[in-house]
Order: sequence, then C-alpha cells, then structure tokens
Amino acid sequence: MRTRRKIRYEDLGLDTKTGNSGYRALNKDGTFNVRKHNVPFMERINMFHSLVTMSWPSFFTILATVYFVINLFFASLYVIIGTEHLTGIRGTTTLEKFMDSFFFSAQTITTLGYGQVAPLNLPTNIVAATESLMGLLLFALATGLMYGRFSKPYASIKYSTFGLIAPYLDINGFMFRVVNPKNNQLIEVEASVTLSMQRKDNPEAREFHLLELERSKVILFPTMWTIVHPIGENSPLLGVSAEDMMKRDAEFLVFIKAFDESFSQTVYSKSSYKADEIKWGEKFTYLTKRNGTGVSIDVGGIDQTYKVDLN
Amino acid sequence: MRTRRKIRYEDLGLDTKTGNSGYRALNKDGTFNVRKHNVPFMERINMFHSLVTMSWPSFFTILATVYFVINLFFASLYVIIGTEHLTGIRGTTTLEKFMDSFFFSAQTITTLGYGQVAPLNLPTNIVAATESLMGLLLFALATGLMYGRFSKPYASIKYSTFGLIAPYLDINGFMFRVVNPKNNQLIEVEASVTLSMQRKDNPEAREFHLLELERSKVILFPTMWTIVHPIGENSPLLGVSAEDMMKRDAEFLVFIKAFDESFSQTVYSKSSYKADEIKWGEKFTYLTKRNGTGVSIDVGGIDQTYKVDLN
Amino acid sequence: MRTRRKIRYEDLGLDTKTGNSGYRALNKDGTFNVRKHNVPFMERINMFHSLVTMSWPSFFTILATVYFVINLFFASLYVIIGTEHLTGIRGTTTLEKFMDSFFFSAQTITTLGYGQVAPLNLPTNIVAATESLMGLLLFALATGLMYGRFSKPYASIKYSTFGLIAPYLDINGFMFRVVNPKNNQLIEVEASVTLSMQRKDNPEAREFHLLELERSKVILFPTMWTIVHPIGENSPLLGVSAEDMMKRDAEFLVFIKAFDESFSQTVYSKSSYKADEIKWGEKFTYLTKRNGTGVSIDVGGIDQTYKVDLN
Amino acid sequence: MRTRRKIRYEDLGLDTKTGNSGYRALNKDGTFNVRKHNVPFMERINMFHSLVTMSWPSFFTILATVYFVINLFFASLYVIIGTEHLTGIRGTTTLEKFMDSFFFSAQTITTLGYGQVAPLNLPTNIVAATESLMGLLLFALATGLMYGRFSKPYASIKYSTFGLIAPYLDINGFMFRVVNPKNNQLIEVEASVTLSMQRKDNPEAREFHLLELERSKVILFPTMWTIVHPIGENSPLLGVSAEDMMKRDAEFLVFIKAFDESFSQTVYSKSSYKADEIKWGEKFTYLTKRNGTGVSIDVGGIDQTYKVDLN
Repeated sequence: MRTRRKIRYEDLGLDTKTGNSGYRALNKDGTFNVRKHNVPFMERINMFHSLVTMSWPSFFTILATVYFVINLFFASLYVIIGTEHLTGIRGTTTLEKFMDSFFFSAQTITTLGYGQVAPLNLPTNIVAATESLMGLLLFALATGLMYGRFSKPYASIKYSTFGLIAPYLDINGFMFRVVNPKNNQLIEVEASVTLSMQRKDNPEAREFHLLELERSKVILFPTMWTIVHPIGENSPLLGVSAEDMMKRDAEFLVFIKAFDESFSQTVYSKSSYKADEIKWGEKFTYLTKRNGTGVSIDVGGIDQTYKVDLN
Repeated sequence: MRTRRKIRYEDLGLDTKTGNSGYRALNKDGTFNVRKHNVPFMERINMFHSLVTMSWPSFFTILATVYFVINLFFASLYVIIGTEHLTGIRGTTTLEKFMDSFFFSAQTITTLGYGQVAPLNLPTNIVAATESLMGLLLFALATGLMYGRFSKPYASIKYSTFGLIAPYLDINGFMFRVVNPKNNQLIEVEASVTLSMQRKDNPEAREFHLLELERSKVILFPTMWTIVHPIGENSPLLGVSAEDMMKRDAEFLVFIKAFDESFSQTVYSKSSYKADEIKWGEKFTYLTKRNGTGVSIDVGGIDQTYKVDLN
Repeated sequence: MRTRRKIRYEDLGLDTKTGNSGYRALNKDGTFNVRKHNVPFMERINMFHSLVTMSWPSFFTILATVYFVINLFFASLYVIIGTEHLTGIRGTTTLEKFMDSFFFSAQTITTLGYGQVAPLNLPTNIVAATESLMGLLLFALATGLMYGRFSKPYASIKYSTFGLIAPYLDINGFMFRVVNPKNNQLIEVEASVTLSMQRKDNPEAREFHLLELERSKVILFPTMWTIVHPIGENSPLLGVSAEDMMKRDAEFLVFIKAFDESFSQTVYSKSSYKADEIKWGEKFTYLTKRNGTGVSIDVGGIDQTYKVDLN
Repeated sequence: MRTRRKIRYEDLGLDTKTGNSGYRALNKDGTFNVRKHNVPFMERINMFHSLVTMSWPSFFTILATVYFVINLFFASLYVIIGTEHLTGIRGTTTLEKFMDSFFFSAQTITTLGYGQVAPLNLPTNIVAATESLMGLLLFALATGLMYGRFSKPYASIKYSTFGLIAPYLDINGFMFRVVNPKNNQLIEVEASVTLSMQRKDNPEAREFHLLELERSKVILFPTMWTIVHPIGENSPLLGVSAEDMMKRDAEFLVFIKAFDESFSQTVYSKSSYKADEIKWGEKFTYLTKRNGTGVSIDVGGIDQTYKVDLN
C-alpha cells in the first residue's frame, strides 16, 4: 500500500522526498511549482501562446521593436539600391537619406503610401511590393494575436485568502469561499479539493487524499460559493490539530472547473492553501442582503470572518 | 436537515430571509437577480467581454469616439510640431491648421494616405509612422471585436410566456414549451427545472426541489419541445393548489443546455416562471401539420392554449 | 403506454397522423423535414450564421453589391457637396463628375488613397474621414466572415447509399457503412440509430425504437466503419419482412457524433434510410488491402455489395 | 467469438490478413497507416485545413505565388486597356510598360496607393477599384489563415522512445513515460492503451485488447507521467515473452486525451510501440529533484533507464 502511494506521487513529477517542510505543489496563482530542465528551446516554446499570454507592455514592446527593426532593414535596402531611384527624397547626407528611406519604408509597410516618396526603378519597386505584402501579413498576424489575447478564456475566480476550520452542522468542516467578480456568468461549476501532507508514520513520504465535499458541483453560480469539506468519520482531517497540520506540512490543492457562458468555453482555476493559510475557529460572515425583488452581495467582504467555537 | 437546506441556499448567494414575497432568483431573460458590491472596477470588468456584449449602437459610438479623440490628439501633436513641416497644409488660421492636421491624422491612422498632405521633417515623420502603426493595431482590435460580436454563441430558445398545470396521462403535470426560432440547429438538448418556494412550516426560509421530468434530454430538437414535470407521488407539487403557489412565492428555475450544430458550441439558456405566470387547467394547442412528405409547425402559436379539466 | 408514445412523438414537433405513407422526418442531408411558420423575420435570422453558411457565389455577390451600393452613396455625397471641393476631378459633365466621385470613394473606402483626387474643404474631409473608418470596419467584418466560413467545422461523413439487411454471425443484421473522405481525422465517433415506423395495431400512429448496435462507439475511425444493428431477440425488426417495412413506412434515423481532431471541435452528422433505401440479402464488399506495412482502402467502393443468403 | 473479433477488426478498415509481420496500424507520429483510394479530389480536400496544417515555408510559398500571379493578371489587364490611361507610367517599351503596370497593380492590391501612377479613365478605374476590393478580401483570408495556423491546438506530448517491461509492485508491468515539454498546461489527462497482436491459435488473424492501466486519468499533469499496465492475472501479456511479442507482431496503440488550459480546448495525441520498441528488464530513472519550495524535473532524461531484474 505504501509503495503504491509513493509510485503514484512520483508518477506525477511531484516530490516524494519531503524531509524538510515548506514544499508547495501549487502556487497561489494556480501554476505548478515545478521547473523543467533540458527541454530544447524549440520544443518548449509555443510562440503564439507566449505572445498571447505575455503582459500588454511586453506585447507592445515586441510589436514596436519588430516594426522598428523591419523598417531599419528595408531602409538599408533602399539606401543600398540608391535613394536616387526614389522620387521625393530630399535628404542629402547619408544619414538624411537613410532617415527618408526609413520613413518611406514605414509608409510602405503600413500600406499608408503618401506618395511623396515613391519607387522609380525595378529594384526599388520589387522591394516596395515585397515590403507591402510582408506588412499586410504581419498585421494579419497582429490581428490574430490581438483577438487571441482578448478572447482568451480564463476563470476569474477569486479565492478567500484563508481557508477556515469552522463548525459545520454538528461537526466541523474545512471551508473556503470563491467568488466570480467578473460580469461573465459561470455555470456548471465543479470543485475538487485534494489534501497533501506528510505521512504520519513516515515524514519522508507524502500522502494524498481527495476530500469529500458537501457539494462538489453547482449548476448556477450567481456570485459566491462556500466550498465545504465536512470533517466526518472518513475524513483524513479527523483528529488532526492545527499543530499537526503545520508539522505535517499540509497543503490543500483546489481545482475548479466551470463553463463560461459568455465565451462558451470550459475554464479551469487552480489554487492551494498551505497549513499557515488556515484559520481555526472562524466562520465566514453572511454577505447576502435583500435588494428589491433580488439580493445584493458584498463581494468585497469575501475575507470577513468572525470567531466561533468549534464542535 | 433544515439547517442543511438553509446552508445550501446561503452558499449560492441567494436570499434566505424571504419573509416578504416577490423574490425572484432568475429574471425572465435568464440573468441572475443579484447585485455585486465592492468589486474593484478592474476586477469586475472584462473589456473584451463588455465590448462584445454591448449593443451595436453603443459599440459604434465607442468606436467613433475613440477615432475622434485619437485624431484630436495627433492633430494637436502636428500643430505643436508646426504645420509648416507638413506639405500641402493650406489653412492659415490656427483653427484651419488644426483642421488640416486633424484630417491628415485621419488619413494617416486609416493608412489612407492621399499624400496631398505629407510629413516633411523628422518629428512629423516619427509621429506619422507611429500613428499608422497604432492605426493598424486599433483596426486589428476592431476586427477581433467585430468577429467576437458576430460569432458569439447564444441559445436563441424562446419560452412560452406561461407555464401550465394541465392533465398528463392520468395525473396532472407542470409543463411549458420551448421553441428554437432560429435556423441554427440545436441538438442534444438537456433541460432541468428547479422549484423554489417558501417552506410550508417556516415561511422565513426557502426550499429547493429539482423536479423530475418526463424526459430531460432529446437528441433531436427540430423546432418545439414541451417539457413536462408529471405531478406524481414524489412530486413536491402534489397537493399544492394555485393559491398555495402564490402564497408560498413559488418560482420555477429553468436551465437548458444544448449543442449548437451551426457554431459547434455548447449553449445555455436560463429562464424562470413565477407563480403568477402559471395557468391552471389549460393545455397547449397542437401545432404540427402535415406538409408534403414533412411537417410544418406554427411557431407563432407557442402561447396558444385551450381550457381543459384537470385530473 | 400507447398514449405515452404519442405524447413523446408530438413533443418533438414531428407528425403523429401518418395515415398516408411517404413521411420522412430527416432528409438525406441531415436537415429536418420541418417547416416553421409565423416566426418573425428578426427572430429567425442570425445574420452571421447566414453569411457564414451561404454558398461562396452568394457570399461574393453580397459583398460586391454592398461595396457598389456604399460607393454609390458616398459618390452622391461628394457630388452634392460639389466636386469642385476635390482636387484632381477631371470630369466636366455631371455623369463624369459622379464617376470620378465614385472611384474616389472606392479609393477612400479601401484606404487605397492614390491622392490624384483628394478632399479640399471641411465637408469633403469629414465625409472622406468617415468613409475610410467605415471601410476599415466593413473589411474587419469581412475578415471575420471569411474566417468564420473557412473554419466552420462540419462532419464530412459520407453514408452508403443503401442500408443492407445481411447475415450477421448466426442471425441477420441491419447495416450501413460510413466513410470519412477528408484528411481531417475523426476520433471518438459515436453512432445512434432510431427506427421510426407505423404502429402494427394502429397505422395512424408512429412508434420509435432506439436500435441496439453491435458497437455504438469507436475511439479510432481511420477511414470506414460498418454500423450494425443485430436483429436479435429484442430487436423491433425481428420478423419484419421487406414488404412490412414498405407498408409500415419505416425510416432509420441516423445520428453520428465525432470529435474532429484537426479543428478540435465536436461535429455531428445526421441522415436517414427509408424502407426503399434498404437492400435485402446483400453484403458489403471487403475493401481493405495490404499496402507495405499499412493498409489501403478503396473508399470509392463504399456502395459495392454482393448477393448473399440471409439466415 | 472468433468470427466476432474478425468482424470488429474489419469494421475499422484495418488489416485482418496479417500472415506476414511488420504491420503497423498507427505511425509513431499518431497518424493512421492507412491510404484511401478513389476519393474524388474535391471530397478529400478541405482547403482551409490544408492551408492551416501545411508547413510555414509551403504556406509562404503559396502566398507569394498567389500574390505574384494575381499581379501578373491585373498588370496584363492594364496593358490591354492601355497604359496611356494611367498617369505616371514612365516605361516606353512594352516590357517596361508591363513592369510599371505590375507594380501599379501591387500598389493597388495592397491598398498602398502611392499615387505616382493612378487610373485615368473608366476601365482602368473599374479594374483598380475591383483589384483593391479583391486585395482586401484576400488579405482578410490571409489574416484568418494566420490566426488559424497559430491558434491551432495540438497536444505537444512527447513519448519515451521505448516502452519498458519492468517490475511493478510484486509483479511486472508494461510502462512508458510521457512529458509535456511546452509551457501550455495540460489537465484532465486520460490515457488508453490497446494491444494488437496475432492470434496465438491463428496467426492469420489479429486480436485486440484494451489494457487495464494502473491509473487511466490524472487531473493535474505538471510535467511527466509514467503510464503503467500491470501484468496481472487478467492481462493478455501474462506469460508472453519478448520472443512471443516479436513473433506475434505486437503493437501497443496509445491514445491520450487532455484539456489544454491555455487554449481552452480538448487535444488528442496518438502513438504506438511495436515489439522492437520494447525493452525488457529496464526501469525509468527518477528525474524529480527538490528545488527550493518546489521541484525540478530533468525532462531531457525521459529516455534514461537502468537495468533491473524482472519479478
């Protein structure tokens, strides 16, 4: 049995030798705390994916740089061919000619084409025709990237900063709250919570438990959902104290799957709570208020709790 | 048990204190009757989503405003640099120069580039090259938004205005009709109906029942489907009168999921019937007629009913 | 039981009064043989869907017409404002001026902007700036439509023209073949076959049977799949002769669902076989041949059969 | 029973007459080792699919060719109409005139429009207006194709070169490793492995077995996963030696399905191991190392094994 568990753990490329505490499988933002080595660059990189997921400043910096470099390149070509083969070049020094060529290139690649400057002979015409085609393709690409960046689906689920151990019915439960702050409507929301901690009998190895939830799926998710694992007879948390949790380096891995009605796409969200992110003997404040024929919810109060005695 | 129900209700951010009637969880158009408070603006807004879901007039107003403001901005730049560095500016007063710059800017950002006006020195060239790049990116964005707006999937399902309590086999049933008026073909259509009403023993709290349906899924949905909940022995509606329904503030929450063959996407539709939108002792008129080797359906008659005695 | 069946049939908007034969629920191409009446035009039409599904000639005709009409409109505007406010207009008669304006409009809306003709005063500048913005948005739309048309997923499944009643193991079976002629790879293919025929005891009503298949799902679908319904003890076809099938106006409704690996989308295909499209006592020819380390299949022979004795 | 198997095999268009060895159903890259014959060209080709899946050099070659040919065509039109109806044509010989027309065409189709050359009469204006519309539509198409090429989802799963027969718990197992080298996060990964080999009693026919896996699904797939088929009592591999495998021409067909979180799409991966790609008595090297609070994995070592005694 023990061997089996170890194999399972190892299979997933997670750590099986946790003699020292402080191990975290999932970062708070849902990314894996795993680094990959020796992956050839070309295998690792998905250019589209990178360009779609990078920040807007990085994205625009890359765009501007590409635009600048390509114009430098074509300006050089026009200068090499000779700016006397372009009409309307007014510069006389090499630098001025290069500048004029640079802006002619910019007018060509964006298909702006004022026409003050225009190609006169065969080579300049060929370069200009090629450049304008290339410009259109590059902007085709930029269009796709813009769309990809904007339409990229993501679950905007926000987690309560802390998980709680609070009374639940006549026992206790581990609970945390999630909220959908966006206007996107999420439906058919499914949650799964896995507990990872050091083995009681062997702190060198880790054990994993899929926790039973009060409810693991809701069809409608208007705004807020408190996910509860009742610490019942079969719960691996039964009899585990706050100190035990710290000592055994517990981590609650949360995995939420939902359907984003706005984008008609399935989205996922992952997060985790470490032992020091669990509060004992606190309960979430009730945030729903009557509002005409409907209700209103104070989403900002997601982290509000009050002291309560545990069962 | 009662505690449990209350907790479930509360979990979803719906109202648990319904002493006064007139509460509605789902609006007729399927949106939640819930308002969120204290969500930071940046967390609430998904710009792409907003631009894709707003009305066409709003969308075009925003586009035109952005176009106007950006041209104002660039026109100011050209005026600051000095319109003497642009060829072909014919205005002499400041206003005329600003106007000429404004339209030069418009010709540049759309990459129209007539060339009557064109940049002459370094700063104007830099601004123009930047503006045309920016123009292309903005129109790349507009392209993505246009596509997003058009290809946005939605279930165009239309509901009968009223739900009926009508005879079904040798008992009665709660039923309503849905129709797909569009040419899109919907398949694998699934329905679920949840009844929400005040508790009999405690009007302060609400109870929820997932109603059993005669059939909850159809593979083919040519046009019209009558969804029926038979009021059998296990139905929470057994013995509930029209007056009870009103008094207990009943609401039928309808949730329909389908696959839109035309867009190859899963679509959802939600709606609800309140107690005063239920007609007792009426039956839907049969709307299918023979038409050559096929049939024809009078979709406009979706709300047609006739009086009938209940079992 | 009988009442129930009738209700089910009626529910789906199909015909329940089939005194005369020749009724067909599904056309060969998978569309429903149903006509909808009294649907308001705006509710029926999904403009994007129509533009994406229409034939290429219709699509280009619409595009060209829109282009022509818009240019007519803007040409009229320029003529009304007065062509003396455009440089380079060489026409002298009204018709010539209109033509010049028309082509200036075309150069503006496509952001071509040769500049031979260019706006000179405020009104012409405003119209031109508006027109170029509008042009960009229209082409943004056209881009989206082009992409929508090309990337539209569809199951390209081809059905054998006839269904067969052929020996299967030691009994008989109803079988037909499907083939994927495209280079797209289809996987996780699921089939369902429903038999619809007049009731034996009451030809006025129809009965429906979901037929059990030898196998209703295949993970891999390299090229060809023979779908078989064994006519076993529980089959509604047991004891039904070819004459019975014709008399009872039988129709086999076929529904196939698959995942198109190339487009990463679920696709559907529907078709039907009427009694007169069934051949009795024929078997499909085996089309697979060894080809080096792989096999080759003669897809063109999908309809090839040979006579055989039924069990 | 035996007849049944044969029919099943035949159904899928795979080979049933494997008297000679060396048959491979799935190529290493996951494509089927099947050739289709007699498919009409138009039925086989999905133009969008082809343009989206071809290599970048082929794609750009096609684009450049189309651009060149269209410009040739329009240049010919301008020459036929007469270049005297274009302003600014400076060429005097027919070749020079054709060249000037060619580059004027390029400036028109890209909507560059320098304006040095411009149409003067009705026919040239009509051709130019048509060409610029056509240009915009072609670049609309190119934009869609660029986006389609980049956003095309694919499972980038990399397989260990060899499958292993290694000790597993107190028995042996067939195992192989898969790795996700990309930065894309794959979740909800499902694997299925089918063993195909010649029948023991009849080498002329093949048998297929879906192998039971230690675990066939993982929710999280950080980096690496070892897929194991334990050779237990019910395994068709029980008692099969390395020589048997070669003689019976065994092939392990692997099918992996995952959800690509980055693109929000389901992706598939297929591969196969032939008998000569199986190593007996070797085990995969453990590649996970502690790295701060997380772990690091040496992905490059996916094929590293060490000798071990079989149970």
